[in-house]
Amino acid sequence: MTRQVYMDHMATTPLLPEVLEAMLPYFTQHFGNPASLHSWGDAAREAVEASRAQVAAFIGARPEEIVFTGSGTEANNMAIKGLAQAQEKKGRHIVVSAIEHFSVLQAARTMEKRGFEVTLVPVDADGLVSPAAVAASLRPDTVLVSVMLANPEVGTIEPVREIATVVKEHGAIMHTDAVAAAGQIPINVEELGVDALSLAACQFYGPKGVGALYLRRGVRLIPLMDGGVQEGGRRPGTDNVPGIVGMGRAAALAPARLPQYAEHLQSLRERLFTGITASVEHILITGHRQQRLPGHASFCVRFIEGEAMLMLLDARGVACSSGSACTSRALKTSHVLTAMNVPAETAQGSLVFSLGLDNTAEDVDHVVEVLPPVVQRLRQMSPLWDKFLKGKKEGS
Amino acid sequence: MTRQVYMDHMATTPLLPEVLEAMLPYFTQHFGNPASLHSWGDAAREAVEASRAQVAAFIGARPEEIVFTGSGTEANNMAIKGLAQAQEKKGRHIVVSAIEHFSVLQAARTMEKRGFEVTLVPVDADGLVSPAAVAASLRPDTVLVSVMLANPEVGTIEPVREIATVVKEHGAIMHTDAVAAAGQIPINVEELGVDALSLAACQFYGPKGVGALYLRRGVRLIPLMDGGVQEGGRRPGTDNVPGIVGMGRAAALAPARLPQYAEHLQSLRERLFTGITASVEHILITGHRQQRLPGHASFCVRFIEGEAMLMLLDARGVACSSGSACTSRALKTSHVLTAMNVPAETAQGSLVFSLGLDNTAEDVDHVVEVLPPVVQRLRQMSPLWDKFLKGKKEGS
Repeated sequence: MTRQVYMDHMATTPLLPEVLEAMLPYFTQHFGNPASLHSWGDAAREAVEASRAQVAAFIGARPEEIVFTGSGTEANNMAIKGLAQAQEKKGRHIVVSAIEHFSVLQAARTMEKRGFEVTLVPVDADGLVSPAAVAASLRPDTVLVSVMLANPEVGTIEPVREIATVVKEHGAIMHTDAVAAAGQIPINVEELGVDALSLAACQFYGPKGVGALYLRRGVRLIPLMDGGVQEGGRRPGTDNVPGIVGMGRAAALAPARLPQYAEHLQSLRERLFTGITASVEHILITGHRQQRLPGHASFCVRFIEGEAMLMLLDARGVACSSGSACTSRALKTSHVLTAMNVPAETAQGSLVFSLGLDNTAEDVDHVVEVLPPVVQRLRQMSPLWDKFLKGKKEGS
Repeated sequence: MTRQVYMDHMATTPLLPEVLEAMLPYFTQHFGNPASLHSWGDAAREAVEASRAQVAAFIGARPEEIVFTGSGTEANNMAIKGLAQAQEKKGRHIVVSAIEHFSVLQAARTMEKRGFEVTLVPVDADGLVSPAAVAASLRPDTVLVSVMLANPEVGTIEPVREIATVVKEHGAIMHTDAVAAAGQIPINVEELGVDALSLAACQFYGPKGVGALYLRRGVRLIPLMDGGVQEGGRRPGTDNVPGIVGMGRAAALAPARLPQYAEHLQSLRERLFTGITASVEHILITGHRQQRLPGHASFCVRFIEGEAMLMLLDARGVACSSGSACTSRALKTSHVLTAMNVPAETAQGSLVFSLGLDNTAEDVDHVVEVLPPVVQRLRQMSPLWDKFLKGKKEGS
C-alpha cells in the first residue's frame, strides 16, 4: 500500500483520541441541555463552563470573555458584523487586510450593503500587513479593524500586536482571526492587545462544528442570531455540549505541543522546502520565509495548475491543498496570492503543505520523492510550459 | 437510589447509541474536510452527502434542498432573515404567530430594524393558529409567513398545511419551525406545502450542534453568514462531519418510531394527565387536548411557581421543564401562555413533561406520586394560595 501522508492540517486536523474520550460521556450519558433547571442540565452546564475556562486559559482570557460558536466562520461573522453594528452610531468605516479569510472579507462586504465603508489594507510580497499601512487606512470614522494572526494559505504571521497598538491608540476595536494560528504559535490576548479573536477547534485537534469568539470584557456586540439567552445572550441555540467539551480539552492539550511545533515541525518544513527547491525547477516560495507558521510550507509550481497536482499527489497518497479549504471548490485565483502580487499564471500552481503532529521526516521525503515526477508529467502536457520553453530557446 | 426520570425531551434528547456508532469513524479516522480535493476530503464529503439524502428522505425533500446548520436556532434565523431579505424588493411585511420560538420571533424583530414590518398572529386558548387569522393578517406586501409545526411549551400541533395553502395562494413564502415536531409526528414538506422548514438533530435523538434548513428548490435566501462555498453557498464554514452523519442516522431511524410515539407515548401522556388531575387540585392543562404532540403533557399548577417545583422535583429524580429550555433562564412569564390568555399568576406554575423512548408507565407513576406532596409543600408557603383560601372562605 502507498504511504498515506496527510499534510493538509490547515484544512482540518484529526481529532486527538484524548479529546474524543473527553467528549464521549456527553453524548449518551450526560446528555442534558445546559439551559435546563435540573441535574441533567447541571451536569451539562458544568462541563460547558469548565471548557470555557480551558479555552480562556489557552489564550490568556477570562472565562466570561469566551463565546462558543458553531465554527471559526461563525466567530468571524459575529465579530465583523456584530462589532461594526454595535458601533454604527460612532462611525461606519471598517478596515480589513486584503488577505483575510472570506468569512471576514465577505462579512465586511455585507456591512457595505448596510451603510458601512470598507478599506482593504494591502500586503507586501511576503503577505505581511504593515502597521504603517493600517495606520494610513484609519479615518476618524473607523470603528473596527480586522487583521488575521496567521494566513492559512501562505503561513505568514502578521504583526498583530503592533497593529493593535496603532488601532487602539486610534480608539477603534481590534479583531484578529486566529483560526489558522491557534495551537501552532503561542496566543495571548493581553500581549496581542486585541478586543476580539476567533478560534476554530478543528484547527487544533479538536472537533468540527465548534468555534469560539473571544470578546474583551466591556466590548459590545450585536448578536448574529436571535433566540435564547445562551452564552450571555450573545449566541443563542442549544449548546453543543460534546463539541464544547472537546474544544476545551483540545485547548488544554495544545500549549504543551508548542515547542514541538516550533522545533520539530519547523525542521520538517525546512526539509520540505529544501527538498522541493532542489528537485523542482521554477518554484516560488509563498509567504514570509521566517515569520511563518512552523509547520507551513507553501509555494507555487510555475507553468502548471495546482488542482491537477492535487489529484496526482492524492493518487500517490499525499493530501495537501491549493489554497484554503473553504475556497478550494470555488476555482478562482487565490485572492491572497493576488494581493501579494503573484502573477495569476504562477498563482495557478499554488500548493500548500501544512504539517501536523503525525508527520515524520519519512513523510516529507515521500513528498519530495513523488512531487517532481508529478510536476514533470503535468508540465509535459502544459501549454504554459511549452510557451516558456519556446521563449527560453528564442531568448538564448 | 431515587428513580431517575427524564421527562424533558423537548429540551433535548439523549443520543441513541446507534447514532454515536455511526458518528465515531468520522472523528479520528475519516476526519477530512469535505471541501478538500483529496481522498480524506472525499470520504468526508461522501458521508455528508449520504446524510443529506437521509435527512431529505425524513421529510420528503430532495437532498439538494437540505442545508446543514449548527442548530435549529440557526436554521430559524437563516429562514426568517434570509428569506425576508431575499424578497425585500417585493415587500417588507412578515407574519409570524405569537407563540413562535424566540429564534423566530426575535429574528422577525431584528428585521423590523432593517425596515420590515411584523404582524403577530394571535392564537386561541388552546394555542391554535387559525388559517383564517393568518389570512386576515396578509397584506399585499407580505413576503414571508412563519408558523411552527408544533409548540414545545404546550404541545399544540398547528394546522400548517391549511395555513400554507392560504399563504401560497397569496404568493408569500411559507416557513415552519419543525424543531419540536420532528421525530414525533410524520413530516412531509410536499404534504405540508411549505417552502422552508427548520430541524434540530438533538430533538430526535441526534447530536447537539447540528440542524438543517429545508429550502424548496428555487426559493432564494440571503445567507446569514459569509465565507466559503459550503452547502451550495448558503451556509459557509467547515462542515461538522460527525454531527451531520449523526443527524442523518437519527433521521433514518426516526420514522420507525412514529407508531410507538403515536400509541405508547400518547397513552403514557394520558396516564400522566389522568393521574395528575386526579391527585392535584387547581390544574390547568395547557395546549390542545387532542391535537398535540403524543408524548407532551403540559399544565399549570395554580398558586405556585414552576421553578420551585422544578427544584423539588429534581431532588426527587424527576427532570421536566417550566416552559422552553431556551427561556428557562430568562425568568419571564411565558410569551406562549400569555398569548393563550392564561393569566400571569397561573402561567407562573407552568410545568412541561415531555416524554421519550426511554420512559415507562412506572416513570409516569413516579411523577404522579411525587408531584402532589411537592405541590402541597409549596402551596403551604405560597402567599397566592393563602389569598385563594381566604377568598374561598369569604365567598362561602
